[in-house]
Amino acid sequence: MFSPLIDELMSALRCLPGVGPKSAQRMALQLLERDREGAGRLATALSNAVEGVGRCRLCRTLTEQDICGTCSNSKRDDSLLCVVETPADVLAIESAGTYQGKYFVLMGHLSPIDGIGPAEIGIDVLAQRLREEGIGELILATNPTVEGEATAHYIAELARGQGVKVSRIAHGVPLGGELEYIDGGTLAHAFSSRRAL
Amino acid sequence: MFSPLIDELMSALRCLPGVGPKSAQRMALQLLERDREGAGRLATALSNAVEGVGRCRLCRTLTEQDICGTCSNSKRDDSLLCVVETPADVLAIESAGTYQGKYFVLMGHLSPIDGIGPAEIGIDVLAQRLREEGIGELILATNPTVEGEATAHYIAELARGQGVKVSRIAHGVPLGGELEYIDGGTLAHAFSSRRAL
Ligand SMILES: [Zn+2]
Ligand SMILES: [Zn+2]
Repeated sequence: MFSPLIDELMSALRCLPGVGPKSAQRMALQLLERDREGAGRLATALSNAVEGVGRCRLCRTLTEQDICGTCSNSKRDDSLLCVVETPADVLAIESAGTYQGKYFVLMGHLSPIDGIGPAEIGIDVLAQRLREEGIGELILATNPTVEGEATAHYIAELARGQGVKVSRIAHGVPLGGELEYIDGGTLAHAFSSRRAL
Repeated sequence: MFSPLIDELMSALRCLPGVGPKSAQRMALQLLERDREGAGRLATALSNAVEGVGRCRLCRTLTEQDICGTCSNSKRDDSLLCVVETPADVLAIESAGTYQGKYFVLMGHLSPIDGIGPAEIGIDVLAQRLREEGIGELILATNPTVEGEATAHYIAELARGQGVKVSRIAHGVPLGGELEYIDGGTLAHAFSSRRAL
């Protein structure tokens, strides 16, 4: 119905989560009618991010730096390492404001059915850090879903095998929920009442 | 919180209508974690559209061609010209499937308070077409809002002054509503019961 370049833009916008055909149409027309500067800036930001953003060598989170800002922050407590599934989980915990240690970001969870095993979530990197660094406590903050619990269980076994103390954040985070959508108060409570595994 | 390139991407995504900080964060992380190919394709589509898409010389709709596909379609009835506010309105009317004439797209409506006068909505181009082409009927399908009605009234006066028959699509489109969100049946009814002005 529209010209090829506009159709292609509408189709490309569908790669955004939660954007269906009607939203994609509204977005494309609004950008072209009223905000070409914003559209140009978005094109540049996408290209730069796709080209530049990789993984932190220490914690695996998304960053364009070799070592991310959190890992290189000397004010944070090196003896605490919190394992989460995604960068959004780090953001949620930071918003709660009580945790002062460092993070390890799995970028997923164990899911044998999808071919995601220990190597895919960086367990080799984590194991090496547990061996080489003087980590006093490993805090497991994977989601309280079936896969998140299985992943926490797997990592707990690994850490125990290396003599590292392991804990799991307290329930209080609703079961089946997604960590990144939980309010800061609930998360702070879950951290403070964590129990040794 | 995130690295500069990711922060910039989240900020740039906010130019999309309906995208707040939380959605922008979710979109940026999902693209970088799981769909870099889609993100690259979106960057290209945005650049191409911003650079390539202009206005149809005859009807003012968005297109990268000199004359758009609808205007150059010889199967459509040249004697009917339907005036709408936006390209999305054209799409809505086409979906209704009964109108076989051509379009003139104002790309807005008269709004003196925002500095949008006749020149900004292409009334000079429309006036020239009314003078030079043998248009049998001008159908006004601007939105049934205060500004849309005022715009229809202004164009009706212009067309009458040049001896061109003018009609307004029937009410049936709910007052205060936005044309692009109306179902095809209501739109078809509105076209068939249009009244002479
Ligand atoms: Zn890091
Ligand atoms: Zn045209």
